Amino acid sequence: MQQEAQAEERREQQEERRAKQERDHEFRLMSMLTKVLSSSRGMEDQSASTRREMLPVPSTSQTYLLPNSAKAVPSMLWGDQKAQYSPYLSRRGNSMRLHQGILQEGYNQYHANVHDENSNPHGIINLGTSENKLCFDLLQKRVRDIMIYLFNMLQIDPAMLQYPDWKGHSFLREEVAKFLSDYCRSPKPLKPKNVVVMNGCGSLFSALAATLCDPEDAILIPSPFYGVITEDVGLYSSVKLHHVPLYSQVPTGSDVRPFQLTVEKLENSLKEAKKEGLNIKALILLNPHNPLGEVYSSEEMISFLEFAKMHKLHVIVDEIYMLSVFNETDTFRSVLSLDGLPDPQRTHIIWGVSKDFAMSGMRVGMVYSENRDLVQALDQLGCFHGVPGPTQYQMAQLLRDRDWLNSEFLPENRQRLREAHSFMTEELKKLDIPFLHRSAGFFIWADLSKYLSEKTFAEELFLWRCFLKHKVLLSCGQAFSCVSPGWFRIIFTDQLHKLKLGLLIGSSNLALEGQCTAEFSSNPDQTQHPPPPPFIYIFLSLFYI
Amino acid sequence: MQQEAQAEERREQQEERRAKQERDHEFRLMSMLTKVLSSSRGMEDQSASTRREMLPVPSTSQTYLLPNSAKAVPSMLWGDQKAQYSPYLSRRGNSMRLHQGILQEGYNQYHANVHDENSNPHGIINLGTSENKLCFDLLQKRVRDIMIYLFNMLQIDPAMLQYPDWKGHSFLREEVAKFLSDYCRSPKPLKPKNVVVMNGCGSLFSALAATLCDPEDAILIPSPFYGVITEDVGLYSSVKLHHVPLYSQVPTGSDVRPFQLTVEKLENSLKEAKKEGLNIKALILLNPHNPLGEVYSSEEMISFLEFAKMHKLHVIVDEIYMLSVFNETDTFRSVLSLDGLPDPQRTHIIWGVSKDFAMSGMRVGMVYSENRDLVQALDQLGCFHGVPGPTQYQMAQLLRDRDWLNSEFLPENRQRLREAHSFMTEELKKLDIPFLHRSAGFFIWADLSKYLSEKTFAEELFLWRCFLKHKVLLSCGQAFSCVSPGWFRIIFTDQLHKLKLGLLIGSSNLALEGQCTAEFSSNPDQTQHPPPPPFIYIFLSLFYI
Repeated sequence: MQQEAQAEERREQQEERRAKQERDHEFRLMSMLTKVLSSSRGMEDQSASTRREMLPVPSTSQTYLLPNSAKAVPSMLWGDQKAQYSPYLSRRGNSMRLHQGILQEGYNQYHANVHDENSNPHGIINLGTSENKLCFDLLQKRVRDIMIYLFNMLQIDPAMLQYPDWKGHSFLREEVAKFLSDYCRSPKPLKPKNVVVMNGCGSLFSALAATLCDPEDAILIPSPFYGVITEDVGLYSSVKLHHVPLYSQVPTGSDVRPFQLTVEKLENSLKEAKKEGLNIKALILLNPHNPLGEVYSSEEMISFLEFAKMHKLHVIVDEIYMLSVFNETDTFRSVLSLDGLPDPQRTHIIWGVSKDFAMSGMRVGMVYSENRDLVQALDQLGCFHGVPGPTQYQMAQLLRDRDWLNSEFLPENRQRLREAHSFMTEELKKLDIPFLHRSAGFFIWADLSKYLSEKTFAEELFLWRCFLKHKVLLSCGQAFSCVSPGWFRIIFTDQLHKLKLGLLIGSSNLALEGQCTAEFSSNPDQTQHPPPPPFIYIFLSLFYI
Repeated sequence: MQQEAQAEERREQQEERRAKQERDHEFRLMSMLTKVLSSSRGMEDQSASTRREMLPVPSTSQTYLLPNSAKAVPSMLWGDQKAQYSPYLSRRGNSMRLHQGILQEGYNQYHANVHDENSNPHGIINLGTSENKLCFDLLQKRVRDIMIYLFNMLQIDPAMLQYPDWKGHSFLREEVAKFLSDYCRSPKPLKPKNVVVMNGCGSLFSALAATLCDPEDAILIPSPFYGVITEDVGLYSSVKLHHVPLYSQVPTGSDVRPFQLTVEKLENSLKEAKKEGLNIKALILLNPHNPLGEVYSSEEMISFLEFAKMHKLHVIVDEIYMLSVFNETDTFRSVLSLDGLPDPQRTHIIWGVSKDFAMSGMRVGMVYSENRDLVQALDQLGCFHGVPGPTQYQMAQLLRDRDWLNSEFLPENRQRLREAHSFMTEELKKLDIPFLHRSAGFFIWADLSKYLSEKTFAEELFLWRCFLKHKVLLSCGQAFSCVSPGWFRIIFTDQLHKLKLGLLIGSSNLALEGQCTAEFSSNPDQTQHPPPPPFIYIFLSLFYI
């Protein structure tokens, strides 16, 4: 036993040494490269490359997946975990395995300790994952009804259990085309042959990145953005994101919105990317936007699409929250409703059932594109992203069920979204916390920077961990590549009684003043850190009243 | 013990040496790059863009995915289709889109014209896709029963509709571990934490290739083999297969089986691959074998695993047909039944419900591996290969349902497999067609080379197309990288009445003697081809009696 333990220890030490050698080596390599690059570039670039050169580069395999903004704070990305190199996996495999988004630490803890009012009342409440839990009762009944249809279907059609068309069964693609025609208010009926169905929008991003880009090509994306897209395009397809930074500060007196996207910003970022030698192939637009909750006007969308057309960029428009706009003041216009897209062969629209139908566990997403070449290429990758036949049948039934959708589910869902949003925004107002007042999506983008002792991402991460220690999982702005620290995405689409219950949990966890400090001090990597300011407790406890 | 420690040390040293070599190599590469960069900085941009323009792109991108054997006959791979390069897709995207397995032409025609005795009696009968259609009646009832449980489950557990653990819901992984423990006769209970569930075995091959190999690394695989594996490891993960050719001819009087795999053959192929500069990372073994129907003895399997251990190769053992062995004479032994695997950290076992439970449309596959690093890496890719929560629940119920499996489904399925196999082999015997007499899987590997006017792959493809023209879809050996032309995989797992119905279709299509010749002559690419020999007609018509 002891021998075994010793052997294990030796192995670990050796792996650590090896990983270090690897890093040193890669650092030397990178230095060589950056030296050459910086010596032959103009002055304006030199400072940038010097900054990069000084970075303690984690390792090429890791860098390969790091989002741009994270490069500035590598230590946070990798948390306190030792990044051990596995001798069993390839470099790519190690890179995948060791890759850890900022929030993963939180999700790991959450999955190990999920709150349940009966069986685990002191578990973690998840206000980090964008899921709508407000309408489960409505869905439950309908999904059961649909299963009864499925019984009958199964009796006559064994095809449900056999290999499908990898773009999706034709009955589902037909329903999707009809559904999008109606709900996106398309001027002409959309065509089933332009629909590809896959197991979730993450798979669609991965497949689109693989088919539109070569490895190391890049895609423009305004930041902040739903951070998982970095992994979606990076893990399998080795495509990078180039951020178009949006800022919270706006000139006083102007009518510019905070974090507003403009064509000028897109132009500047594209120029900058080209200067960096990046091969930009596409632009990703989220509308309604996650995490900002922005709903772009059709004039805005057209200007972005015209920009893309001018530069021959593909545009992937992610409209996955299109039916979760819950106030009449915001009118969502799908790009499919436009009278002619500026560049239809390069415009690809994504939607799925995860958000608007509150079924992220169903794994069903779809892309609409008039580009035949793209549809053919996606077809080839379809076998890796297949949806079970019976699930396709259920989803087709759901999309077809207009009476229920229009008279029951959608109005009731909007009403509940509005109420939950209003509850959360009232709490934020009481605490004098600034936030973007939007009415789309499941989240509020709030500025908690007044609770940071310094406006740094290290402090932001510290605050995020403090929430987590107290059993509340949120998403911090850094994970969404926000350029200014202190912003958090707070999910409001959970049952109100669960949110109120949070008060008890919060209080019991906060029984001892200063506990948070104590807990963090016990972590050796955090000993240098100043004790957290007391208002964090105030926020935590008030948050759930 | 001591010997083991020494071996371990040697292994470590060797790995260290290898890592150092790797670094030196990268250093040299980087030196080259930086030299070029620094010397030609001014011209670099221009030359890069010129280079791209000059590229005769389609051919490179195509070759990148061609299986080894296909390189000899590229014209066949691309059929008569013009391989147009799309300006919208990346080179990788074009390569994916234009990639066409030999059989795809057949599947495209099949999907456009599926035989149905009522609605499309003159459609194509598919004896090419390995699906078991013999037991749909049994499954139908059971899947319906399971859905009734699911109703109740859905009432209490909304988690089914929310984001899951990407390795699979824990209730399913527990069932899989129990199921494999029992049906693979594992000496110790298998552990749920070693199970990863994905949407089909194609996804597993893709994810394993991505995590165990770097792009352009290669995997050994004895040929012939189920040809789609080439795309599974190649499309997303850019991993190549290196074939270990097996031959039909055996020395007369020897007890060597046709197409027998031996360690010697593995050794030779590995040497050859190294000589070619390939970096071989793994070995794929299919047991029971598709298309050969071979069931390897445990002695044979151990010898292959020992070979892999000696060369530090991972072994992916695909046991997807393990419960479809239908004669007592063949005894299947899972490698999970062995008393200790030679190299457990490098042995990964695949199974799924597509074949043994006749549910290829359900998209559920699983891998069992003791390697924690690998399980972690696969977890990262899980979001691209997710299975819907309700489907996971249904599958767990099915695996748990031992009474039904043992007393009803499995014995009845074996009985029906045996009958259908016997029907087909009798027909082949009447026609004096040689075939491998095995009793596992859904297929017979038959030698139709006597119907080829010349023993070439061009002739084999011609014969395959002739079958297709007459509404019978088969798989030709070339698609499975068989080294000798004329072998075909014939699926026998369809209802007998459908097979008999084939007679009418065959006859009506063959009403005019010489029709096949006429049809082929009308194709300009085939005008130079000699008329097909008349015995093809005989075979086609007799085949369905």
